[in-house]
Amino acid sequence: MATGTINVAIIGVGLVGTSVISQILSSPTLRHSLSIVSLQNSKNLLLLSSDSERSQISQETWKAKLASSEKPAPEPEELIKILQSISSASAAKHTVIVDNTSNDAVANAYPSFLSAGFSVVTPNKKAYSGPATLFSAIRTAQQSNPTALTYLESTVGAGLPIISTLKDLIATGDEIHKIEGVLSGTLSYIFNEWCPPSLDSTVKFSEVVKVAKEQGYTEPYPGDDLSGSDVARKLTILSRLVPAVAEAVPLPEGFASVATRSLTPAAMLAEEKTTGKNPDSYVSKLAAFDAEFDALREEAKKEGKVWRYVGVIDAQTKEVKASLEKYPATHPFAASLGGSDNIISFTTARYATRPLLVQGSGAGADVTAMGVVADLLKVAERRGV
Amino acid sequence: MATGTINVAIIGVGLVGTSVISQILSSPTLRHSLSIVSLQNSKNLLLLSSDSERSQISQETWKAKLASSEKPAPEPEELIKILQSISSASAAKHTVIVDNTSNDAVANAYPSFLSAGFSVVTPNKKAYSGPATLFSAIRTAQQSNPTALTYLESTVGAGLPIISTLKDLIATGDEIHKIEGVLSGTLSYIFNEWCPPSLDSTVKFSEVVKVAKEQGYTEPYPGDDLSGSDVARKLTILSRLVPAVAEAVPLPEGFASVATRSLTPAAMLAEEKTTGKNPDSYVSKLAAFDAEFDALREEAKKEGKVWRYVGVIDAQTKEVKASLEKYPATHPFAASLGGSDNIISFTTARYATRPLLVQGSGAGADVTAMGVVADLLKVAERRGV
Repeated sequence: MATGTINVAIIGVGLVGTSVISQILSSPTLRHSLSIVSLQNSKNLLLLSSDSERSQISQETWKAKLASSEKPAPEPEELIKILQSISSASAAKHTVIVDNTSNDAVANAYPSFLSAGFSVVTPNKKAYSGPATLFSAIRTAQQSNPTALTYLESTVGAGLPIISTLKDLIATGDEIHKIEGVLSGTLSYIFNEWCPPSLDSTVKFSEVVKVAKEQGYTEPYPGDDLSGSDVARKLTILSRLVPAVAEAVPLPEGFASVATRSLTPAAMLAEEKTTGKNPDSYVSKLAAFDAEFDALREEAKKEGKVWRYVGVIDAQTKEVKASLEKYPATHPFAASLGGSDNIISFTTARYATRPLLVQGSGAGADVTAMGVVADLLKVAERRGV
Repeated sequence: MATGTINVAIIGVGLVGTSVISQILSSPTLRHSLSIVSLQNSKNLLLLSSDSERSQISQETWKAKLASSEKPAPEPEELIKILQSISSASAAKHTVIVDNTSNDAVANAYPSFLSAGFSVVTPNKKAYSGPATLFSAIRTAQQSNPTALTYLESTVGAGLPIISTLKDLIATGDEIHKIEGVLSGTLSYIFNEWCPPSLDSTVKFSEVVKVAKEQGYTEPYPGDDLSGSDVARKLTILSRLVPAVAEAVPLPEGFASVATRSLTPAAMLAEEKTTGKNPDSYVSKLAAFDAEFDALREEAKKEGKVWRYVGVIDAQTKEVKASLEKYPATHPFAASLGGSDNIISFTTARYATRPLLVQGSGAGADVTAMGVVADLLKVAERRGV
């Protein structure tokens, strides 16, 4: 692959973005094929217009250069013009936009990016788990611009090979029967602690949530994790890749259309609606429901089972749901799982009696960035050589 | 992708080859991008020289046409000439040779195939687990012909995303600490039965081998599985992909250089050398050693552990070995494993405290063919568009 085969424009330089930049800049091989031409946060844009600017940029310098840049961060349409101009002045064969934000405005611009002939690589779940209209606009833009590719491995399970595996199963003609998994690292941690496969835990549910919050495993308001919406977003993304499910369960409002069980008790949800979200009192209010959670755990224990918060896509019952389900203590979702790992199971015509399983850390800057950079290499392989 | 973007020449039409052909021919999308131009078994060659021959071939007709073909199966050098001639007469952008044999002669021809500019996709372990000279010739041929790609996903774990995951980890700059796994479906079955995580099995080792043989899980001579050589081959393939390991543990004779524990007792191995392999008496002779296996199992049980036959690549101790190891009954290799599943665990700088795990059926015609066809699509994506 020639030097600077692919131009890369990076939007969002938070934890994941910083790790993406670091992975690219620290590898001479990656620098040869992936040439960073722009970096932007919500305020500034750093343009690397010339070959010498691009070759001089380093892990030590980019942050200061971006911070001191006097160019304001452009709107998407303006960014497209800038990248078109860079592209025509460079020897690059293709341009990829990497969206490391969790921003709706950037997600909404994907159809424009693709229509301009650029590819999009992203860990941002917003575009693919949003309304069907946006997803459909992305599909249409991509179909009418065959050079524009979209890769989204790290939207589900970060660097774990989940989306690529699902795509390979479908492309080679396998029939998806069921996809089932623990898809939230936060909820994985909470349930592994509260309901371990040894069945001997006596810790209170609210206590586990409290520790998870203190250790930074949850969002500032734990109810945002306990709502299940993150799982519903990932389910939306996966289900849209399975043609039979996408047709039967169209999810017009995206993740908001997924049947989703909230772990926040109904009384607290009702209160939340009137008083708003209070991060400081969430756990103490949750403690009032510990006896109900205790009873739930006891019910499962009697059957030798544990509870897990899972996402389920069932192609046979045409069901997509984020829910609380019981599994035998010997099931991989109980016995093999630990920490804040994600685990996903594909039951298909070929993997019928025993599913294909992928397990591992499904969140964190470095593994998410790995999914992004691996996707960038796939675009480079398809467009750069 | 245009019709017939990629010409596909298939060598070997046994179980896996038949399934590869079936997966391609039963999907209109795959037929559009993957155009089968030749089929051959050890006797005959069926050439599909024209567009109309290629479009008329079907799952119902190919076997009879191949059987009745009067063209003898060509030697590799002759096949290259035939494919060059077809390639120049067709609109195809590239030609891929699929080797579904377990034949050394075909494996030895990969450097010639690649030097001719063809890609190679294969589930045949022979080339990549053989002598370092062959592996190095393949590398050299590929480097001097950048259009020639090699894909070998299905040599390890069939359709499971093992090699692609390892490649992504390395390409994005992760540091491999350890790769460890149950890589033989046959040995997985035998140990899951003989030494289950419940620790309560009393079945004799030879009895389990007997059942495995009767059910067709083993080679005709079970000692071929119990030798561990299949695991050693897979380890060779994986270790050659990890630069630090490949340098430190060069394996000049390929799998034959891997430290490999045979499960066949030493006394039987000595006898085998003089009397040869006798499939009919193997199990009854093995029964004489059941007490030793019982004692071994008892030893692990006292520690709450089970035995598993695993492959280990340790980048830190610079060790590549196929061996018998003890794991706690709660370890995924014990608790999560079942049937004849493969499981592989990647411990890396990024997946340090908890490894990345891939598990599922690692053998069988359909899942092996899936790995082959997914690889073909990757070649098509890189060469066809």
